[in-house]
Amino acid sequence: MDNLEKMRHTLSHVLAAAVKELYPNAKFGIGPAIDDGFYYDIDFGDIKLSDADLSKIEKKMRGIIAQKLPMTKRTTTKSEALNWARDNKQDYKIELIEELPEKDEISFYDMGDLFSDLCKGPHVDNLSQVGSFKLIRVAGAYWRGDEKRPMLTRIYGVAFATEEELAAYLQQQEEAKKRDHRKLGKELDLFCFSDLVGAGLPLFTPRGTELRELMANYSLSLRGREGFKKVWTPHITKTDLYKTSGHYAKFGDELFMVHSQVSGEDFAMKPMNCPHHAQIFASRPRTYRDMPVRYMEATTDYRDEKTGELGGLSRVRSLTQDDSHVFCRNDQIKDEVKRLVSIVKELYETMGMQKLRARLSYRSDEDKYLGDKKLWEMAQKQIKQAAVDNKLDYFEQEGEAAFYGPKIDFMAEDALGREHQLATIQLDFVQPERFGLEFINSKGEKERPVMIHHATLGSIERFLSVFIEHTGGWFPFWCAPEQVRIVTVNDKVNNYVSKITAILDKIVLDKPLKYNELRYTIDESADSLSKKIRRATELKIPAVLVVGPKDADEGIVSIRLRNKEEKVKLAKLADFLTKI
Amino acid sequence: MDNLEKMRHTLSHVLAAAVKELYPNAKFGIGPAIDDGFYYDIDFGDIKLSDADLSKIEKKMRGIIAQKLPMTKRTTTKSEALNWARDNKQDYKIELIEELPEKDEISFYDMGDLFSDLCKGPHVDNLSQVGSFKLIRVAGAYWRGDEKRPMLTRIYGVAFATEEELAAYLQQQEEAKKRDHRKLGKELDLFCFSDLVGAGLPLFTPRGTELRELMANYSLSLRGREGFKKVWTPHITKTDLYKTSGHYAKFGDELFMVHSQVSGEDFAMKPMNCPHHAQIFASRPRTYRDMPVRYMEATTDYRDEKTGELGGLSRVRSLTQDDSHVFCRNDQIKDEVKRLVSIVKELYETMGMQKLRARLSYRSDEDKYLGDKKLWEMAQKQIKQAAVDNKLDYFEQEGEAAFYGPKIDFMAEDALGREHQLATIQLDFVQPERFGLEFINSKGEKERPVMIHHATLGSIERFLSVFIEHTGGWFPFWCAPEQVRIVTVNDKVNNYVSKITAILDKIVLDKPLKYNELRYTIDESADSLSKKIRRATELKIPAVLVVGPKDADEGIVSIRLRNKEEKVKLAKLADFLTKI
Repeated sequence: MDNLEKMRHTLSHVLAAAVKELYPNAKFGIGPAIDDGFYYDIDFGDIKLSDADLSKIEKKMRGIIAQKLPMTKRTTTKSEALNWARDNKQDYKIELIEELPEKDEISFYDMGDLFSDLCKGPHVDNLSQVGSFKLIRVAGAYWRGDEKRPMLTRIYGVAFATEEELAAYLQQQEEAKKRDHRKLGKELDLFCFSDLVGAGLPLFTPRGTELRELMANYSLSLRGREGFKKVWTPHITKTDLYKTSGHYAKFGDELFMVHSQVSGEDFAMKPMNCPHHAQIFASRPRTYRDMPVRYMEATTDYRDEKTGELGGLSRVRSLTQDDSHVFCRNDQIKDEVKRLVSIVKELYETMGMQKLRARLSYRSDEDKYLGDKKLWEMAQKQIKQAAVDNKLDYFEQEGEAAFYGPKIDFMAEDALGREHQLATIQLDFVQPERFGLEFINSKGEKERPVMIHHATLGSIERFLSVFIEHTGGWFPFWCAPEQVRIVTVNDKVNNYVSKITAILDKIVLDKPLKYNELRYTIDESADSLSKKIRRATELKIPAVLVVGPKDADEGIVSIRLRNKEEKVKLAKLADFLTKI
Repeated sequence: MDNLEKMRHTLSHVLAAAVKELYPNAKFGIGPAIDDGFYYDIDFGDIKLSDADLSKIEKKMRGIIAQKLPMTKRTTTKSEALNWARDNKQDYKIELIEELPEKDEISFYDMGDLFSDLCKGPHVDNLSQVGSFKLIRVAGAYWRGDEKRPMLTRIYGVAFATEEELAAYLQQQEEAKKRDHRKLGKELDLFCFSDLVGAGLPLFTPRGTELRELMANYSLSLRGREGFKKVWTPHITKTDLYKTSGHYAKFGDELFMVHSQVSGEDFAMKPMNCPHHAQIFASRPRTYRDMPVRYMEATTDYRDEKTGELGGLSRVRSLTQDDSHVFCRNDQIKDEVKRLVSIVKELYETMGMQKLRARLSYRSDEDKYLGDKKLWEMAQKQIKQAAVDNKLDYFEQEGEAAFYGPKIDFMAEDALGREHQLATIQLDFVQPERFGLEFINSKGEKERPVMIHHATLGSIERFLSVFIEHTGGWFPFWCAPEQVRIVTVNDKVNNYVSKITAILDKIVLDKPLKYNELRYTIDESADSLSKKIRRATELKIPAVLVVGPKDADEGIVSIRLRNKEEKVKLAKLADFLTKI
């Protein structure tokens, strides 16, 4: 346990001590350190905490910390511990202690003479070492996560080693709240939900569809350049496919089951595309000259997620993957992985998320891995070489591989410094075996190919949830759903507007995505100029062309970008917009 | 009943008469006229018919026809009819007669003295009037379509008024067999099926995916030009959506039902997209200035079809529709329909299926139609005006409208003269009501929009089944999955090939679909030139560039098109290919 975790853990005890002083009848559940801070689950009886109560508790905590009490470990027998819990009427602690083995010593932590708690520790030595903290919110939590047990009050705090780190964290949270993709999704009219359609099933409006298609097409275009060919597979399949692939046994309860009323057959919605792609590979004989065979498809998979875990686009039931599969010879692994790594680097560079870490996950000596050990070692070497050749910022982890093969996972950092696991490259020695895939090698013998799974964006919905917050909705020019809006001062400029649109109609951006025609609209409503500009700004349109009679006379265009305003001559307009 | 139908019906009696002479123990089921001919279902006991038997029966039929016997109607009582059937041991006829009402007269047709059959008629007067026929095949058919009843032998014949018409029909059938899209789908490597995935669920290979995407993109591009915006909706929805729309009550048993193991919720796979699009329309307030709102989506719907009815791409369970919905004011119907009609005309013109008939389907005086009668009349007038304005070849049919609104269905003729119902434009007054859709009109009041459903290709899978047979797999240059193949005579020409590919890389076709980069491959394998050319021809690649040392020396390229060969100078190559 690192020091920060000890500090946070001690703070949860301080929280409990403060609550005990203010609410003597409170009964305590558990209070662990978590990412960014700590919490404690407490039964307040009939009392409901308000924001004012939270301030009161926080104030009391600061008073306790100021006493610089020592944190001391003490061990007791099980019966002594039970006596303590009974004397203090701590029903939840009684339950916890009763489950501990009879013969073990049971440890407590004493905060000076003020407060004792059942706890394994460790903690900081003295309350003077707890760093900076803030209580942030209250939530309900079932005792032991069981909805049949009592609902406790969970008080959350955030904590860091220094005041500066805490302030930075709180500011980042504040910024993240403003950028919340669910909020921006509504404001920018990107997607919506319908109660009639269901939770976790977003519907994309024209703007959101434009955005998701640009993302998908860009991702596919990078792979198209590297020889990947699009295929198309249906969204359902007989469960036989997953029984053969082995997915049914492992993930059967995450499948949406589909039933035919007509034939009585059992189908499932596809939660991934590899078995379908393997069927296309298997649809004709292949030789070593055909290898590698590279398929890609941006298609929607369905996973039966818990309703409570669904939120905006971060976790959905309908996830569209920019999925691809390479079927290759053993000696082609390195080149194919290299190709994919370079695609990942290029895409995240374009998205302004160039800070990318890669985890190379290898097998351990455990038995759980399928496939020949020598093949694994050879493949792991090739993966590492691909990482080195591509100058990846990588680290290696044994025992983190999938049972079917080693892999690379990419973590991308967003503008708020948060890391997101998105792209992945996974080798697979098992599915080719299960589906009996083969090609004729140069000796005329049958040989088994290796499969390489890869998604660059991952799920497009989840990527968008990250990208919307990363950009705060100010999308780069090339992928803004509406790139340009022309706002007229009055209808005397209509002729001049036609001259402008004639120029816009001819603009075709070719980077990063080819043949990207300019997407613009004209607001020539009778509303006031300021209202029109506000409307365009609310939609975070990257370039707003404000056109008045004076601009028409002078042959210029006033362009409002996010942070500046420019006046551009008509003859230079196309050039200017192409270079934004 | 028209005369051709009478001729065919009489031929089914001649067939029965011939069978009775050759197989005195045969028991007869029913023998109707059908499209293109006739059949008779017959119980031959343990005898299985061979092709030779079919010739024998046909010969006997011709012998009977040569006797020019009269066909005479005769009526009997039910008990007389039953006596006849019992005397002749015609068990199936006994069953049929027993079901007839006691008091009615029962009619028979006598073929001179040779053969009598229970029959309502009508027939031709004399066997000399039956026209030309041919027996074509034998199939099994359950008595009364019930799989628990005996399997009878169904003998099919085709028949036309003249020998010429029969010959033309048989030749068309022969040609259709060669063009069968299931056969071409395999030969051209366009799609495949997998037993593990299931019947009616095609998987599209890279070539087939290229083709289907070009079709879909072209269709969407025509509508994009007219102001339609792409949206995206998930493939499943809570059944609540269809309960509200009314589809559940009407089509509930054609839905693939989806069950969540996690939440227990009931979902269905979407069989159409209108209710989803209505939800996007309803996701924000709309005013008269926003109207019309036009959405489009090429998305896959799922319908629980009978397995026995699935075949190739003609009827599938996964059908991708190039679907769109307009939400408009009542006074915008004509313009919107006109817009759609012009799109349909342009698309089918491009596909080489310019012979297009349109059926305008109106309401009748029956009660089954929903929505205000005046609205219907006003809408029907607007539809007709749109047809006239677009110079459509149309006909009108009262009583053919859907219950929710009038419509236009388009029938396109293919290269073999077969008509296919593909595109459709349907008005809908009911869904806007059921979903409570509204916009604020210019008076500031709430008003209900009209919905216009439209698909141009219809289902892309079904369209492809037609288009593959229409073209015989020789796709127009713009949509051929592989447009150009370079075939080298030997490896001395590699430098020259680079010069050619540098030219090909720069070619971008802009008609009928914009930004259509040239799709080519190079066959530089060690195989013989003739083998390479054969391979390219088998794939029906529209332009094969054969490159030998002599071509390199002279700076020319030999181009093999479907029906001719040309020699083109390198400098003219781009121009030549762009104009194919």
